[in-house]
Amino acid sequence: MRIILDAIGGDSAPVATVAGAVQAARDLQVEVVLVGPAEQIRSELSKHKTDGLQLTVVDAPEVIGMDEHAVQAVRRKKGSSVAVGLRMVRDGEADAFVSAGHSGATMAGAVFILGRVSGIVRPALATIFPALHGTIVVADVGATTDSRPEYLLQWAHMTSLYAQLVLQVDRPRVALLANGEEDSKGDKLVQDAHALLRNSELNFVGNAEPKDALVGNVADVLIADGFVGNLFIKEAEAVAKFAVKKIQQELSKPSVLARALAGVVPTLLLLAGSKQRGRVLLASLVGMPAVIGAALAPAFVRIAKSLDYRAYGGAPLLGVDGVVIIAHGKSDPMAIASAIRRAKESVEHGLVTAIGAIEGTAGKGTADERG
Amino acid sequence: MRIILDAIGGDSAPVATVAGAVQAARDLQVEVVLVGPAEQIRSELSKHKTDGLQLTVVDAPEVIGMDEHAVQAVRRKKGSSVAVGLRMVRDGEADAFVSAGHSGATMAGAVFILGRVSGIVRPALATIFPALHGTIVVADVGATTDSRPEYLLQWAHMTSLYAQLVLQVDRPRVALLANGEEDSKGDKLVQDAHALLRNSELNFVGNAEPKDALVGNVADVLIADGFVGNLFIKEAEAVAKFAVKKIQQELSKPSVLARALAGVVPTLLLLAGSKQRGRVLLASLVGMPAVIGAALAPAFVRIAKSLDYRAYGGAPLLGVDGVVIIAHGKSDPMAIASAIRRAKESVEHGLVTAIGAIEGTAGKGTADERG
Repeated sequence: MRIILDAIGGDSAPVATVAGAVQAARDLQVEVVLVGPAEQIRSELSKHKTDGLQLTVVDAPEVIGMDEHAVQAVRRKKGSSVAVGLRMVRDGEADAFVSAGHSGATMAGAVFILGRVSGIVRPALATIFPALHGTIVVADVGATTDSRPEYLLQWAHMTSLYAQLVLQVDRPRVALLANGEEDSKGDKLVQDAHALLRNSELNFVGNAEPKDALVGNVADVLIADGFVGNLFIKEAEAVAKFAVKKIQQELSKPSVLARALAGVVPTLLLLAGSKQRGRVLLASLVGMPAVIGAALAPAFVRIAKSLDYRAYGGAPLLGVDGVVIIAHGKSDPMAIASAIRRAKESVEHGLVTAIGAIEGTAGKGTADERG
Repeated sequence: MRIILDAIGGDSAPVATVAGAVQAARDLQVEVVLVGPAEQIRSELSKHKTDGLQLTVVDAPEVIGMDEHAVQAVRRKKGSSVAVGLRMVRDGEADAFVSAGHSGATMAGAVFILGRVSGIVRPALATIFPALHGTIVVADVGATTDSRPEYLLQWAHMTSLYAQLVLQVDRPRVALLANGEEDSKGDKLVQDAHALLRNSELNFVGNAEPKDALVGNVADVLIADGFVGNLFIKEAEAVAKFAVKKIQQELSKPSVLARALAGVVPTLLLLAGSKQRGRVLLASLVGMPAVIGAALAPAFVRIAKSLDYRAYGGAPLLGVDGVVIIAHGKSDPMAIASAIRRAKESVEHGLVTAIGAIEGTAGKGTADERG
């Protein structure tokens, strides 16, 4: 299997991308094709032990800047890593494309160069999201806004297939993101999509409000319009950061930890044995809140990170005619390798073919919709 | 000033509502008219010292259940507290209406009985939301879905007036809730509303994504479609609960707190004076994580509550022809009194008149839109 990696895409490229490619080639027994400025990639590759690994370099000298207009950049820069790599997938020279670069450019390029799977009206980006009792796949998180109900139905089918085939979830429970569980909740889009999903053969469990999705363990797949879904994952991250900051504020108040420590003071006094020693011991407790607060910091960082949806491997762009995985711009080598693994699994399980075989979706597009 | 309180509305009515009314009548020097089943209210009132307070009871024997259809309930139950109370405001017999009951019924009743302020196409519910650096008013949080750009412009005007007149914010900064700061972000509604706001005389600061709104201190007023805004406040609460649970999970791991305590162990050993005493002292530390975790619990509850948007007094329904304040169903007497205070301030500062004088909003409705 040959997997293309956009070697120049991502905040730490090519250092992190090349290291991730080496790791993936070693661990996954796949061929990784590094696409980007060849000189730069080879120079970076020379720092690694690559004997026996299937690593190839394909030159793509043009670079798409993070502030460039996605569609224009992909159309104009035919020598960019995104354009070169996606053409290789289209032409059957590779099986999948992975990028941690300009996600807008990758999405636009995928639609433009690979096209959509026949019958799929709009693509959806699906990301794994951390809930309290496991993970949930949310789609769309930013590929398509101003959706129609039929799009959401197709995304539910595609994301359900992804959860089943790639994430090995048995008969995934599908929910619609809404502001209440009742069938009448949501805006018109949600209400109409609800009716379509209700009549589908999916394992549709109804609407899920944020608390159901996050702490309720009611669904494996959560469907929303791309604007709403993108807001949803961004807010989760923002609130988690907010809550951690609030908690750190609380813990930095000496009174809070002092009260916490008061419970153990009698034991300590008893153990100190003498009054004088007891006083010194008590005095030493004054410094404890700061020590404990500082020691707890890594736990807080871990929690904030656990709500960072971007940490969860790559996000597949579902509905385009090829396996395309979007990794986060801040990906380290392990995240790059993990996105390559996801690409490999998607290819192995025939995700794109399965999506092409989705039957009975009301949204099988008319010619002009497929544009 | 006469303020109507829906005495039978809310999870703890009439106990909490009557107690809140007594407190408001005492603290705010207003007349509170308790509307609901008169017998029940009088019996509850008899438990309080009400000498010299302006407290009136108006009988409204019909009760709207929380599971009733909002519009139907209000239209059919003309003897309900919502219908009776709102008619008194319409007929000039009272200055404002406050309810902690069925919010859908109150909103429907307000539009149906009071009507909209001339020129206002759709009403918006505005709630105070806790950000890290102060509060932010979010609208609409559930009165109107499937909005048009003109609605959002009017809501921005009304909410800005509310922030200025009632919350005393000088020249409120208005932002649009979006999935990115760039002008091109959002769905079509947000993009079109963005253009309208850009050309308005409001202090429009552009798009705000969740992190800007929550931790960035970039805006005083945040505008969104009612479905999106309702999801926004519900998700904030859900994620805060989620984060607190995660943190409690972390703190319940002995390893985390043990590591935190390790920093103070040498001092304790030194102070213990003897090896044997030192061993006993160390053994006592084993129990400390649980003690500290338990003692920190109230701080966590406080943090989760600080993100409960419902705790922040009443939410005004902006755009209807009268002051209507919706309090949370779980309101305790203090929350009821606080909602009455907000009603009083809204009346004092002429909020409804000011809304009627909003000029130059592109959305001054056509006759059929005003329906």
